[in-house]
Order: sequence, then structure tokens, then C-alpha cells
Amino acid sequence: MTTQVNVRQDAYPTRDSEYTTVVDRHDPVVHDWDSAGPLSVQELQSYDATGYLTIDELLSPEELQQCRDELQGLAQDPDVKADEATVTEAESNEVRSIFNIHRTNAIFKKLANDPRLVRRVEQLLGSKVYVHQSRINYKPGFVGKEFGWHSDFETWHAEDGLPTPRAASISISLTDNYSFNGPLMIMPGSHKKYVRCAGGTPEDNYKKSLVMQGAGVPDRATLTEFADNYGIDVLEGPAGGAIIFDSNCMHASNGNVTPYSRSNIFLVYNSVENTAEEPFAAASPRPEFIGSTDFTPAGD
Amino acid sequence: MTTQVNVRQDAYPTRDSEYTTVVDRHDPVVHDWDSAGPLSVQELQSYDATGYLTIDELLSPEELQQCRDELQGLAQDPDVKADEATVTEAESNEVRSIFNIHRTNAIFKKLANDPRLVRRVEQLLGSKVYVHQSRINYKPGFVGKEFGWHSDFETWHAEDGLPTPRAASISISLTDNYSFNGPLMIMPGSHKKYVRCAGGTPEDNYKKSLVMQGAGVPDRATLTEFADNYGIDVLEGPAGGAIIFDSNCMHASNGNVTPYSRSNIFLVYNSVENTAEEPFAAASPRPEFIGSTDFTPAGD
Repeated sequence: MTTQVNVRQDAYPTRDSEYTTVVDRHDPVVHDWDSAGPLSVQELQSYDATGYLTIDELLSPEELQQCRDELQGLAQDPDVKADEATVTEAESNEVRSIFNIHRTNAIFKKLANDPRLVRRVEQLLGSKVYVHQSRINYKPGFVGKEFGWHSDFETWHAEDGLPTPRAASISISLTDNYSFNGPLMIMPGSHKKYVRCAGGTPEDNYKKSLVMQGAGVPDRATLTEFADNYGIDVLEGPAGGAIIFDSNCMHASNGNVTPYSRSNIFLVYNSVENTAEEPFAAASPRPEFIGSTDFTPAGD
Repeated sequence: MTTQVNVRQDAYPTRDSEYTTVVDRHDPVVHDWDSAGPLSVQELQSYDATGYLTIDELLSPEELQQCRDELQGLAQDPDVKADEATVTEAESNEVRSIFNIHRTNAIFKKLANDPRLVRRVEQLLGSKVYVHQSRINYKPGFVGKEFGWHSDFETWHAEDGLPTPRAASISISLTDNYSFNGPLMIMPGSHKKYVRCAGGTPEDNYKKSLVMQGAGVPDRATLTEFADNYGIDVLEGPAGGAIIFDSNCMHASNGNVTPYSRSNIFLVYNSVENTAEEPFAAASPRPEFIGSTDFTPAGD
């Protein structure tokens, strides 16, 4: 007699040991090299090598103003502030992020389905894509808090059940990004390695981790080695521009004591061939407003 | 019969009202335009206009290594950590600053009296100078905390009794300063204005203010106006270099989530014609290890 055990395949195990280990990424970064555009071969090569691409002017001045007005309105709406999809700063209680805006707000829904965004990501991921997560991030002046180094994919795999890093994020800047107001920092090339993080996932980890990363954080020795190997790119750029980056980039941002707030719209696109399954390292998936299970293709 | 009241002259009142107000600086920035050096007329003009000067290589590689070794030794010495002249990070309990090193440590005493430093400051201040304060600052990687915008002179006037801003600081970099590891930020030109801060000075304010500024902090409206008017310079530069800056510069630094710590030696020189009196806005002066009353000229 033989006993048959169904072992779930997991190409990216994590949070299953007391040690942090680094392995190669198994999957491609760019999935479609043959389309005519909108991204050029040079842009694809750069994205493949560094893990990110910048777009100097994605939004027109009018679109930018419309998004800013909408953001101001939402930040001052008591119903929005009280909603579970809104995260406030630990100390100051100011709004830090509003999630799920591609479903709850008409302007951001339209933006999330805009062909300027969707076609670029479709090219990178080689398929139709859907929005896995969306949010507005505020980093208020004077009191904006830092966010430590992490790979988004590690969390989306462990807690949301995305099988592979066939996903990309677009961060659209609503304010100018200076080196001094806590801009996005990426270790270019780090997306080619996968950091298998130590430890388990506490229940309801997301409630803490949205404000300050806990589980899913590489150890300091690994981060130091990564920074020495890959360097740190500080992504400055004007409002209305955007950054597209691979889901497995090691990234972070410093706090902000300057008077200049930093706000962006953050849209996560996942391939429809990589839809969310059961979490790979958590007891239950995160709420729908953080990890969507509506796999309807964007921009159709 | 007439009643005679002795009113103490104070050209820079502060912490005496519920409002923040901005006035012109009454005193010159550069006090000696006629000496042959070591600073050139161009350097003096730049210092006068911006409030700071950078020196690309002040320490030789050997001197730099010696200072680093000394710093490592001090940070690991339990007696030093327990000393009242040592300040630790609020959350992590790591060493943040060690004060009074120009009197307690032979290597830093020699450095504080080095003619490369002293002659430059003598030229800026137009007189012999003495060390008002000295310290080593650590900004550890991953957990280094920010320091909000302030003028040092405001505190040295209010709490240490320096009559006028005839003082300058030299910050000698022991590690490379990148835009991303919490470097010094200065609003160039802000030293020509004096911000009369709101509020009083709590007793033993220094115990808090060395870790996180409280009293003596300009309000947000003033800081925003200053940033809009003057801009923000981010002072990157290699280890071994130095920044000389006027005591009344509006300056700050962000936190540091990168693996790269930021350490410097900080020496404050005051003119012997501007020695400390009774505090102008505090019940009693700060301790000797923070504000020296030994006015012996440096470098003699």
C-alpha cells in the first residue's frame, strides 16, 4: 500500500524557517519582447536589467489637477477616514493610504483602466492584466514616516497567494519627488533574486504591516549585502510622472521632515495567468480591499 | 524719586510669546574680510550668502581611519554609554551622540585644536574662538531617526546664553553622505533671518531636545515659507570632508532606513568676544558638557 500526499507546488517558499536565504528568481521579468509597443526594446531591456522604468509625463497638467483635487476631497471626508480601507499614520493619525480606489472612485477607476497604463503593463507581463491592489499614498510633510526595505511580491505571494512575480506596480506621482521628501528608493537588479524571509505570519498581519513592515522583512545582513551589490537608486521626478516597477524589487522610502508632502497613486497589475490562489504562507488571505479576487481584465 | 529698572539687552528675544515671528539678523555673518586666508574671498562670499561652506577633503585617509577606530571604541565602551554626556536613540537605545569629546578624548581634543579648523573659523568670526560644544553623532543604518528643522543659535541663545550668532559649526564626515542616508539639509540664506520661536522652555529641556526638538522649533507655516523662499540643499559628500555652517542656519536631517550609517564629528566654535552669559530664555544654563564655560581659545 502506498500513501499519496498532495504537496502544493511553491516555487517561492518563505517565512518557513528561522533563517533568511537568497535564491535566484525562476521566472522572466519581461514576458513579451515582440510587440511593437508602447514600450521600446530599450525600455524593455532597461526594465529587465534594473526592475523599473520611469515615465516623465504620464498625466497631463489637467489630469494631475483633477487627481489632486480628488485626493484632497477624500482625505477630508470623515466617512473615508473611518473606512477599513483607509490607513492612518501610527503617531499623527493623518491619512496614510486609501485602498481599493480603482473600485470605489470613478476617477481612479478610469485611470486604472487607462490604455496608457494597461498596454504598457500587458507588454511587460505578456498577457491581459487585472488590478490586484490600488491605493493612494500620502506622505505628509514634517511627519511622514519611513517604510523599510521589502519585496512586494514576497507579501503578495505569502499573504495573497500570487504564485509568481508576474506582476508590476505603477506609482503615479501627484507631488514632486525630491531626494529630501522620502521618495521611492529601489535597489536596481535586486528583482532577479528572491529573498526567502525568516519567521511566520502573525494573524491579521496586514493591519500592522501596512503601517510598519514586520513579517516578510529581509534581515539586515541580507539587505546590507544587497545594497553593496546593487546600490540604491533614488527616484526623483516631477508630479505627473510615473514609475513602473517589478513586484520583486527591493524597495523602501525614508521619512519626510520637509514641508513638502509626497503623494502618489499606486496601482498593482497582475497577469490574468497568475491569479491569486490560497496564500502560500498565511492562514487566510488578506481582505478584498487589499488583494482583489476580481480577475476581470483591466482596460477592456 | 525715580525707580530704576535694569532691563537686560537682548537683540534676539525668543520663546516669549505664543506666536512665531521672523526678524532680520542684526549681526554680520563674516567678520574678517581682510585676512589673507585660509579661506578665499570667493569662499567667504559663498559662506556669507548661503550660510555654509563644504571642504571636500579635510582629513587624510589615515586621520579618517584613526577617528573611525576611536568612534567604534567609544560606542562599545559601557562606561561611555552610561555617561550623562552620551545620548541614546529613543526607541533602539543605540548610541546617538557623545558630547564633550574635545575635553574627554585625546584624539578629538587634538582635532578640535587643529589649525586647519581653527584658522578657518577665526577668519569667519574675526577673533580668537573657543569650543562651545563638541560631539560625535551617529545615525545608525536601518533605525537612524530624523531631526526636525531648527536654528542652533536659537537654542544656544535661549538656553546657553550666547549673545549673538557669532558662532560656527564644523561637521566632519566619518562616513559617506548620500542623499538617502539622512544627510544634513540646509535652507541656504536662512541664516540672514532670525526666527523668534513661540512658547517657553520646559525645565531640563535639553534631556528631550537632544533626541527630538520640542521648544525652540519654528512653526510649520514659517518653515514652509522658508523652504519656498530659500530652497533646501542636501549636503552629500565623501567621508573625510567637512561642512562649516553658520550657527543661525535653518537645518534638519531625515531618518535613515538604508544600511549605511552616518557618523560625524561636530565641533561648535564661538567667538571669544561672544562668550556665554546667563541664558536668555531658560531658568538655568544647560550642563557644562553641552555648553562650555571654558573660554580658553582653541589652537593656541
